[in-house]
Amino acid sequence: MRVEQLRGGWVEAVHDVHAAVVDSAGRLVARTGDPELVTFWRSAAKPFQALPLVEDGAAEAFGLTSEELALACASHSSEPGQVARVRELLGKIGCSERDLLCGPHPPLSDRVAQDYQSRGIRLTAVYSNCSGKHAGMLALARHHGWPTEFYTRLEHPVQQRCLTEVSRWTDVSVADIRTAVDGCGVVCYGLPLRNMALAYARLGRDAGWGMRDAFDTDASRISHPASRIGEAMLRHPELIAGEGRPCTEMMRAHPGRVITKVGAEGVYCALLTQQGLGVALKVIDGHAIASALAMAAALEALGLRPRPASLAARPNVNTRGETVGELRVNGGLEQ
Amino acid sequence: MRVEQLRGGWVEAVHDVHAAVVDSAGRLVARTGDPELVTFWRSAAKPFQALPLVEDGAAEAFGLTSEELALACASHSSEPGQVARVRELLGKIGCSERDLLCGPHPPLSDRVAQDYQSRGIRLTAVYSNCSGKHAGMLALARHHGWPTEFYTRLEHPVQQRCLTEVSRWTDVSVADIRTAVDGCGVVCYGLPLRNMALAYARLGRDAGWGMRDAFDTDASRISHPASRIGEAMLRHPELIAGEGRPCTEMMRAHPGRVITKVGAEGVYCALLTQQGLGVALKVIDGHAIASALAMAAALEALGLRPRPASLAARPNVNTRGETVGELRVNGGLEQ
Repeated sequence: MRVEQLRGGWVEAVHDVHAAVVDSAGRLVARTGDPELVTFWRSAAKPFQALPLVEDGAAEAFGLTSEELALACASHSSEPGQVARVRELLGKIGCSERDLLCGPHPPLSDRVAQDYQSRGIRLTAVYSNCSGKHAGMLALARHHGWPTEFYTRLEHPVQQRCLTEVSRWTDVSVADIRTAVDGCGVVCYGLPLRNMALAYARLGRDAGWGMRDAFDTDASRISHPASRIGEAMLRHPELIAGEGRPCTEMMRAHPGRVITKVGAEGVYCALLTQQGLGVALKVIDGHAIASALAMAAALEALGLRPRPASLAARPNVNTRGETVGELRVNGGLEQ
Repeated sequence: MRVEQLRGGWVEAVHDVHAAVVDSAGRLVARTGDPELVTFWRSAAKPFQALPLVEDGAAEAFGLTSEELALACASHSSEPGQVARVRELLGKIGCSERDLLCGPHPPLSDRVAQDYQSRGIRLTAVYSNCSGKHAGMLALARHHGWPTEFYTRLEHPVQQRCLTEVSRWTDVSVADIRTAVDGCGVVCYGLPLRNMALAYARLGRDAGWGMRDAFDTDASRISHPASRIGEAMLRHPELIAGEGRPCTEMMRAHPGRVITKVGAEGVYCALLTQQGLGVALKVIDGHAIASALAMAAALEALGLRPRPASLAARPNVNTRGETVGELRVNGGLEQ
């Protein structure tokens, strides 16, 4: 599978895709390119960085809502409602925006970015797309009585706890996970795509969803941490990304049937709740839109039809407003 | 050769490079990847779209200056001085900004873009990085008595004239050149990298520069159109791109020894004036910064040492201002 930029019907640029589709037993059921490609999980790791909140009792202790857990898993658009919820979460745990160590950046949604710019809104840490994750990490620190300072550093117990969690879900030993600094300052994890996909498949298995609607969660499983995190994401596609952004569109198109989570530099992960399959892909050059089109195509190939129209292809519009080509997927998954 | 995005010492993203280095006889003297790759020449074709201005006598008739010819070859930064010169050129030929059919866009220089945004400057067609090329096309139309309307269309004599010129320099027949619509609305040309490189090598040959300083142009050659266009570019690196941008930096680092010209979607071309070599490269995924790093590395490998420091590698700085990796070239040219 590759994503091609066409101009006047001719290929002008190519974005190669690597992907692994895995069941919860770790069987590779589909692939393209190199499913063992090692790359950074980036923001697609967020659900697994949020799981300790539930597992360690912080979510219960602080009375975190489903919306707040969703934001801990999100790369949100900095929409006013999203930012307000993160501020509430910070208040609940006795922290403030000043405790956040994520750096500010223009909102991932162009619409929101333009709106804030035209209104002269100063972008602070709480506007970071990762502010929910950071607030969650602060909640974990508060719950355990760990310092809230320097919580982004590898040696801090919050990061060590998340690293252990990532290792457990991915079946990659802590020693074998490559670590580096993420765009927002916390630890990020380098591991094979296949293992990222495995973690998502296991999330579905542990939530008890296999082969049926994820909203009909078995009562005996409802308290499993995977179920709380998974349901939070499934129920709030509008918080996982934001209006018009691919994760939100893909999850809204098939309610309860898929969790999708974007990461920076062309990483994308998903869980097909009914099939119990995890998907992880990487556009090797890091192209973000190409990765969203590739994920929509992969999910369609795996039975999630149809793709949202906005993710079937992306028109290439020039400075005169003329459509002069398009970005679209060529090829598919192999068994 | 490939350009790698590193994070914490690990490769996170890869940008593959294809390149051809050719002498004026068409001999392939160095390469990487596929030197026969067919892609769009985009703005790297501008010198050859400007040549008819000199060849057909428009430059002489309108008294176009060296600076104005340089801007016809430029992807400028929309700096105030650059925009003012394009306006002067339009005035000389009895046209105005309203005749320009290029669409507006934020300046290619971040610094200029931020300056204009903070000052609320409305970006019109003359601010397009291609406005010099468009003004040149209008000059060609005026000179020949062709209509100035619809000059961007393939069937317009201006575009037909440029197409013939491109065919002549590249040794690709008009029938074999793929045409499409460029970002600014004019015709763009799809052809092999090797032929793009050939055109640049021939530009140096026809300017009479081989094996010596390009500023010591043989008086008998000074009137050759290639010499007028080549000298205009060599003498005004600040107009070909702008402050801080790669073309300007590479040409300033080695005055008289190199012409470099960026194109959109990862295309980059160059002429080494002393060696008489043309270079054409494509970062297959279209990554602009990667293409500039690749060109700087290729030129260094071909004897243009050292690279400007800003083009040796590009730090990857996260939202907290931490340097968390870098973009850098791996590998080189093959003979």
